[in-house]
Amino acid sequence: MARRPALPPGAADLAGRVELAAGDVGELVHVLDAVRRYRVDCIYHTAAILSAACEASAASGFRTNVGGTFNVLETARLLDVANVVFVGSGTTYGLDNIPPRIDDATPQHPANMYGTTKLCAERLGLQYHRQYGINFRGTRYGMIVGPGRRITHHFGDWSGIIERPAKGLPYTVGSDPECPCAYIYVKDVVRSLLDLKRADASHLRQRMYNVHGFTATLGEVAAAVRRHLPSAQLAFERDPGGAMRAANRSLAYTMDSTAAAEDFAYVTRYTLDPMVADFIAEVRAGRAG
Amino acid sequence: MARRPALPPGAADLAGRVELAAGDVGELVHVLDAVRRYRVDCIYHTAAILSAACEASAASGFRTNVGGTFNVLETARLLDVANVVFVGSGTTYGLDNIPPRIDDATPQHPANMYGTTKLCAERLGLQYHRQYGINFRGTRYGMIVGPGRRITHHFGDWSGIIERPAKGLPYTVGSDPECPCAYIYVKDVVRSLLDLKRADASHLRQRMYNVHGFTATLGEVAAAVRRHLPSAQLAFERDPGGAMRAANRSLAYTMDSTAAAEDFAYVTRYTLDPMVADFIAEVRAGRAG
Amino acid sequence: MARRPALPPGAADLAGRVELAAGDVGELVHVLDAVRRYRVDCIYHTAAILSAACEASAASGFRTNVGGTFNVLETARLLDVANVVFVGSGTTYGLDNIPPRIDDATPQHPANMYGTTKLCAERLGLQYHRQYGINFRGTRYGMIVGPGRRITHHFGDWSGIIERPAKGLPYTVGSDPECPCAYIYVKDVVRSLLDLKRADASHLRQRMYNVHGFTATLGEVAAAVRRHLPSAQLAFERDPGGAMRAANRSLAYTMDSTAAAEDFAYVTRYTLDPMVADFIAEVRAGRAG
Amino acid sequence: MARRPALPPGAADLAGRVELAAGDVGELVHVLDAVRRYRVDCIYHTAAILSAACEASAASGFRTNVGGTFNVLETARLLDVANVVFVGSGTTYGLDNIPPRIDDATPQHPANMYGTTKLCAERLGLQYHRQYGINFRGTRYGMIVGPGRRITHHFGDWSGIIERPAKGLPYTVGSDPECPCAYIYVKDVVRSLLDLKRADASHLRQRMYNVHGFTATLGEVAAAVRRHLPSAQLAFERDPGGAMRAANRSLAYTMDSTAAAEDFAYVTRYTLDPMVADFIAEVRAGRAG
Repeated sequence: MARRPALPPGAADLAGRVELAAGDVGELVHVLDAVRRYRVDCIYHTAAILSAACEASAASGFRTNVGGTFNVLETARLLDVANVVFVGSGTTYGLDNIPPRIDDATPQHPANMYGTTKLCAERLGLQYHRQYGINFRGTRYGMIVGPGRRITHHFGDWSGIIERPAKGLPYTVGSDPECPCAYIYVKDVVRSLLDLKRADASHLRQRMYNVHGFTATLGEVAAAVRRHLPSAQLAFERDPGGAMRAANRSLAYTMDSTAAAEDFAYVTRYTLDPMVADFIAEVRAGRAG
Repeated sequence: MARRPALPPGAADLAGRVELAAGDVGELVHVLDAVRRYRVDCIYHTAAILSAACEASAASGFRTNVGGTFNVLETARLLDVANVVFVGSGTTYGLDNIPPRIDDATPQHPANMYGTTKLCAERLGLQYHRQYGINFRGTRYGMIVGPGRRITHHFGDWSGIIERPAKGLPYTVGSDPECPCAYIYVKDVVRSLLDLKRADASHLRQRMYNVHGFTATLGEVAAAVRRHLPSAQLAFERDPGGAMRAANRSLAYTMDSTAAAEDFAYVTRYTLDPMVADFIAEVRAGRAG
Repeated sequence: MARRPALPPGAADLAGRVELAAGDVGELVHVLDAVRRYRVDCIYHTAAILSAACEASAASGFRTNVGGTFNVLETARLLDVANVVFVGSGTTYGLDNIPPRIDDATPQHPANMYGTTKLCAERLGLQYHRQYGINFRGTRYGMIVGPGRRITHHFGDWSGIIERPAKGLPYTVGSDPECPCAYIYVKDVVRSLLDLKRADASHLRQRMYNVHGFTATLGEVAAAVRRHLPSAQLAFERDPGGAMRAANRSLAYTMDSTAAAEDFAYVTRYTLDPMVADFIAEVRAGRAG
Repeated sequence: MARRPALPPGAADLAGRVELAAGDVGELVHVLDAVRRYRVDCIYHTAAILSAACEASAASGFRTNVGGTFNVLETARLLDVANVVFVGSGTTYGLDNIPPRIDDATPQHPANMYGTTKLCAERLGLQYHRQYGINFRGTRYGMIVGPGRRITHHFGDWSGIIERPAKGLPYTVGSDPECPCAYIYVKDVVRSLLDLKRADASHLRQRMYNVHGFTATLGEVAAAVRRHLPSAQLAFERDPGGAMRAANRSLAYTMDSTAAAEDFAYVTRYTLDPMVADFIAEVRAGRAG
């Protein structure tokens, strides 16, 4: 494969304990190659291009997110990989007029290319389970936050509001302090994926689960940061383009995790304050690259 | 393109009035080529492989039905084709436990590869409308019947029960005479597509419409055939594999056409008896090849 | 796979002794699927679309002939298939101004899309041997003749001139009786492939071999047919389009089989008269479907 | 398209005078998109991945270099781009046992994946000219040198030997000072492409031309550098892996530019000393990023 893989700075402690292989998930040969070389038992399929890239080019979104998922599923079928665990998305429920509480029966009407690709991807996974018996399981989240997410104008505020103060840097949030947002801390994401993978199949009533972290406004996040870092320099200033506000508004729902709780014992471990505390500690330990 | 196209016997009267170009919808170049050569203004996108082929190979279904739709949409975008009219499917609602009445708000949970590909296809079309302004419009139908559909063990009974007696041939139906099925005659299909295409955009509240023909049991169809052809030799004998029964059960719903009626004045013209009468006339006019 | 495979009538005696799987060589998944299912040890890669289809659409030629060969080679690499035996083509040497005798050092300058795809294909095979150790071996032939080739205006004369008289039918050859052509009988083709496959690697100085059958004019073929079938009704009438003449002129060379003879003991078994005799016997035995 | 394009530092003076669009040449849609947006009249097709990446993954080399060229040619055909000018490679002549003088009749037997892909690419271009009348023209070069090429262990010495001393930095060449190498300065490359593009078709006897800069040993290059920069700190130390020596040996030929000289008046403007002088000036002007 062409790309030279490297651990991100935040995961440097894994050096020597994991093997990395880089490739393009949109190329079937790359996926087959990696799986074949390591005799993989479970693919955690997290590869996707995000909203901005999907909206810039639907063709790129289709190739990587839909075609890439097809490549993962075909590889599992062709090379007898038993398990595929997939990271889906709350954006499959749309961006506007979403009900305040989303459960697994809520109709999915994505309103952008990213959500459309994620819906196609999860439905293909469910079908490969039915058609070929591949042990496909997946989750949908709201906004995943944690050290190391890139701080861009688009969705970066959710990480920037903690990461910058933790580094002693000022930060101006380009969004509305009153707007609630469905968060989940990356450590709860990882744990939920591992627990879903380990769960006994007989306990699973479905294959895709909504998983909720907690809901908070950006104002509440800022207040929590200030509780831990009294000298934090945070300001709010609505962005003229409105990208953050639009993004926020689309995440102002609660994902009902009842099925996840009952079927694989999911509970949010990192609610607002524990999340902020851990996030700051990680940044200070140098794991925010 | 490699394939030599020819009009089906049932459409021989179109010779000299239409131009045919053959190609593989799964190949972007073929789609681009055909659209470019004829400066196409509207693509009626009906190309798909059906259930049996999709269940035999999910990869083939993905390539032709999902990838093919992507190719049509990208071609429309790249070569400035204003309109794409798409034939979707009621199978996007699943096969089991479908509510007796399906409207446009019913959640879509397809249960086979064909339905999965059709769901992905319609959602991609809706997204290309949002993202690139392509005038994408489409319909979903139950079981389309009409002269010339191949009579196979899978879904053929719905046509065979009329076509064979119309030719003076006996026919044994491999399914349950009591089970209701959502039918639509192919002439209502074509008219609904043309009317949807012509409808003023300001009248359309949505882009995908459920379109219903009528509901009847196979027993009722047989009775109607006998009303028109008293000497028809029809028998029922449940198929051992149960394929027809399963197919029937999955179509035992009514598609709510309210939105289609309000937005582009759709009404079923061919209910059971007119459909049987017209079908027989078409077969006898030699248009059932 | 979507296509339903069936033995050609001419090979009906193989029924029950071989397994058939159909697919599109242009689809990597189809090739992987077939190879995986049967744990294939050697792929005889003969799949290609021919000149007429390649000239009608370079894109189709590229996809099937170049992409198809890439798919075969990648499948061999990914699924550890030791051997790939490839049918190349004399058209890689071009159509005009070809030297009267072609050996393995003659530069290859194909002059149509078919020859171009076959050149790319053989070079990719040679490279997969160098890069991945795949035991790639192949041959180049002039005009392959034998029972069952379709008799079209393009290249059909070479078969038609024997097959039609063998069935008691008249035939008018659309080409020049004086023009020599490099023929090889299909049984010599098959034997050469098997012998090349079996040859000890230490005896092979190269990986692609020119293999010659014999050279004869169409007039000489007609005379041989008349020797075996005195009542044969054969006439010559130059085709107005000149397709056959052009095709003939491009095959008016001898392929030097010296290396094939030395490295894997190839000799032509079917020269003109034995070929005509065997061809007639095969047609009469019903193996000319 | 996903990638954000930017001018390299060495071409910063072009800012505001050119438009950049980034994309993956291996994706037909990306190529179509860029050509369509700018109504391109001539594609200078220089996109390729180089030897190291091709040898690491033949699949990646095939996709980008062969598939990418196919995408460029199909785009030219579909969107009526009149001209395609292609940068081929001397590696199509192989790596070992190359004759000391290569002319346009020398058989091409590439010995690595990069050369194989470049051979397939040029032959596809020639075929699109024959089949579709696309004005395809191209050149083959030995080692292209100039400011800004990345200095890697593989081929970097040819640039490093000038660029580092020009920046006042020491450099140790990992290769043989006695081995001749076929160089061409990037400015002669660009000029030859423009002149070939402008040449009257009636003057062109062929479509692919070998274009030679000059031949020199690395020792002679070092001596020339010292003539211009008496304080240059240059040492030679054969690399243990032998990569540079192997690369050098494969380029120890002269490309016969007779046809290029006669057909589009090519002459080398930058022989050894003018090349070194200009290269140093460019580096010092900050155009070596």
